[in-house]
Amino acid sequence: MNSPSTQSRDFLSEITMTAQISSARAERLFGVLSQGTSSSCLITDLSDIRWLTGFSGSHAWLVIHANKLSLITDGRYTEQARAEIDVHQANVDVIECRTQAAMIATTKSLSQGASEIQFQDSDMSHQLFCLLQTELNAALVPLDASGKFLRRFKDETEIKIIESACRIADQALTQCRGLLSQGLCEGDVRDELDYAMRKLGADGPSYDTIVASGPINAARPHHHPTTTKIEDGHTVIIDVGALVAGYHSDMTRSFVIGPMSVEQSEWYEAVRASQQAGIAVCRPGIQASEVDAACRKVLIEAGLDQYFTHGTGHGVGLMIHEEPFINSSATAILQPGDVVTVEPGLYRGGFGGFRVEDLVVITEHGCRILNTSPKDPICPPLQLTT
Amino acid sequence: MNSPSTQSRDFLSEITMTAQISSARAERLFGVLSQGTSSSCLITDLSDIRWLTGFSGSHAWLVIHANKLSLITDGRYTEQARAEIDVHQANVDVIECRTQAAMIATTKSLSQGASEIQFQDSDMSHQLFCLLQTELNAALVPLDASGKFLRRFKDETEIKIIESACRIADQALTQCRGLLSQGLCEGDVRDELDYAMRKLGADGPSYDTIVASGPINAARPHHHPTTTKIEDGHTVIIDVGALVAGYHSDMTRSFVIGPMSVEQSEWYEAVRASQQAGIAVCRPGIQASEVDAACRKVLIEAGLDQYFTHGTGHGVGLMIHEEPFINSSATAILQPGDVVTVEPGLYRGGFGGFRVEDLVVITEHGCRILNTSPKDPICPPLQLTT
Repeated sequence: MNSPSTQSRDFLSEITMTAQISSARAERLFGVLSQGTSSSCLITDLSDIRWLTGFSGSHAWLVIHANKLSLITDGRYTEQARAEIDVHQANVDVIECRTQAAMIATTKSLSQGASEIQFQDSDMSHQLFCLLQTELNAALVPLDASGKFLRRFKDETEIKIIESACRIADQALTQCRGLLSQGLCEGDVRDELDYAMRKLGADGPSYDTIVASGPINAARPHHHPTTTKIEDGHTVIIDVGALVAGYHSDMTRSFVIGPMSVEQSEWYEAVRASQQAGIAVCRPGIQASEVDAACRKVLIEAGLDQYFTHGTGHGVGLMIHEEPFINSSATAILQPGDVVTVEPGLYRGGFGGFRVEDLVVITEHGCRILNTSPKDPICPPLQLTT
Repeated sequence: MNSPSTQSRDFLSEITMTAQISSARAERLFGVLSQGTSSSCLITDLSDIRWLTGFSGSHAWLVIHANKLSLITDGRYTEQARAEIDVHQANVDVIECRTQAAMIATTKSLSQGASEIQFQDSDMSHQLFCLLQTELNAALVPLDASGKFLRRFKDETEIKIIESACRIADQALTQCRGLLSQGLCEGDVRDELDYAMRKLGADGPSYDTIVASGPINAARPHHHPTTTKIEDGHTVIIDVGALVAGYHSDMTRSFVIGPMSVEQSEWYEAVRASQQAGIAVCRPGIQASEVDAACRKVLIEAGLDQYFTHGTGHGVGLMIHEEPFINSSATAILQPGDVVTVEPGLYRGGFGGFRVEDLVVITEHGCRILNTSPKDPICPPLQLTT
């Protein structure tokens, strides 16, 4: 076992403790809800529930009626919910229910007098919707867009936590980069990255860490690490982020093992320039599709855009993929507090691929990059121990 | 870094390779679908898609029309989907769509002539349902229960894979159990368990590994590991499973550090006897609620049932929680091929808790336990290195 991580974890607990959920968040929600006692609201998105109450478990509903928040959860989480809500100084009642029928009955009783219940239609299954429609004496009305994206703009504490998650992923990559020249397989490098992030204080990887090597695997943008050995001449894509206090980071670097071929060099430079161009236009007031267009323009000029087969980025917070998304048809206007990835990539079966990704926060006048990992792609050729 | 895991991973790839998805699975689906070209089916549950096609990515729809399967996914996954479908010898077309609008248009075109489209109402969001209802020229009809639980009964290959996942978790716990007496924190033990499972060939933990120690944390059934130090006198619950080729394992053992108090001993024996009683009734034809009742009866007799605050178990497969669920109101009849947990527990704030859990497969005449970890709860007192 490496050095215990207690020290770094304690540091992070401190950050978490300062993430006290003031009544400001509930107020933000009240601001967009229909007013009065004739309307109540049922929040089922667990990230929204965490954001509003501090509860981090895997099963709960949050009922809001007459400016009062009630969390319904099951026996696995009652104690935990009370403690987390207490730490986050949220003003929320906790109610234990052992069955879905009891959750529905409690929701009905909590929203007594309401003629409509606003709900999250992108989160709730159609099956549950139908059940609620039968059981509740109120019209179910989808929460409008302003209510859906309450979490989108991050406050200072949230940005501080995300930044610490970025720092952990940066440090883990620094520690593990040398492994790329040791004849290991993709899975082995992934294991060490994940372990290193935890020893640096992360709760875990913030998504399935990607290590994609060689002409077939690196040509798959979301490749899952295998026993494929990393070899001289391979392009290698590493997409890695850390989870800290529920918040995610997201970063990609690409490498070549040994000397780069001319084509590898041309492709890598195109991706890197494309990513820089995207970051260069990130600022308040710009439409998300323009960031995508800025990245794509560089690749069009290089004659390589056909190999950029995915969108340019997405928001990151309590979810690894959240609003605002950045692609050619994205209409969201970037605003201060948006935390988004900029991650163009090029992929071709038989060749491999490259992707470069940073997490940026939109500031008053532009943006700030939250990752610090260098973008030098060259790794030494294999140093085989015999 | 510990020893590389390439060897064990190669062994597991072999198992995976034999998990070829014969046309039998699609046939099982065709058997429950409405017949004829007037009906098509849209599968959105990613575990069902994996089971039917081998595709393991995070974004796809599967359209079935006139006994033909078409997988719609985005540019991140096109190459991967074709390769995985090929390995699994599934007969499926892959179609790339970059936007949800394109996915809907493709679904429409693929189900041309169908007057109804069966869909998975427990998986599809109400928002997507409304969108499809507007865009498609066909009635949307929920797939009935027989279509929902196609994956429930595991075949021999699936059981072999789940068994290998159990073996990995057993071995990891054997390797790491000694850490409980070394003055580490919960998070440190979790980190070593997860790392050990990977070195033994797992793709990762099959859920967030639980290490819950002491009077507060061990009283929370789904506690998330913290910097809390494991100390003499603590009860410790470890709930750990491995992920192999998409399949999960699930196992819990409970410990006491140093000598057990009389109360700890009484509680532990009650939980252990309760779990044995549950396993003793697991056989084909029994209603799931009877397994729950058998566990609960032992705890009632011990006067401790008020501290058993959750259900007794759940099915395990491509999802960690799936049908059949085992609780006091569960009506499912257990059948050969069901793989379920039996996991009673007792929890009390200020005391701590115990849970004992095995994964069992229902056989022709009874059941077989898939875990082999010993159930001796006693760990040596702390061996502090000074």
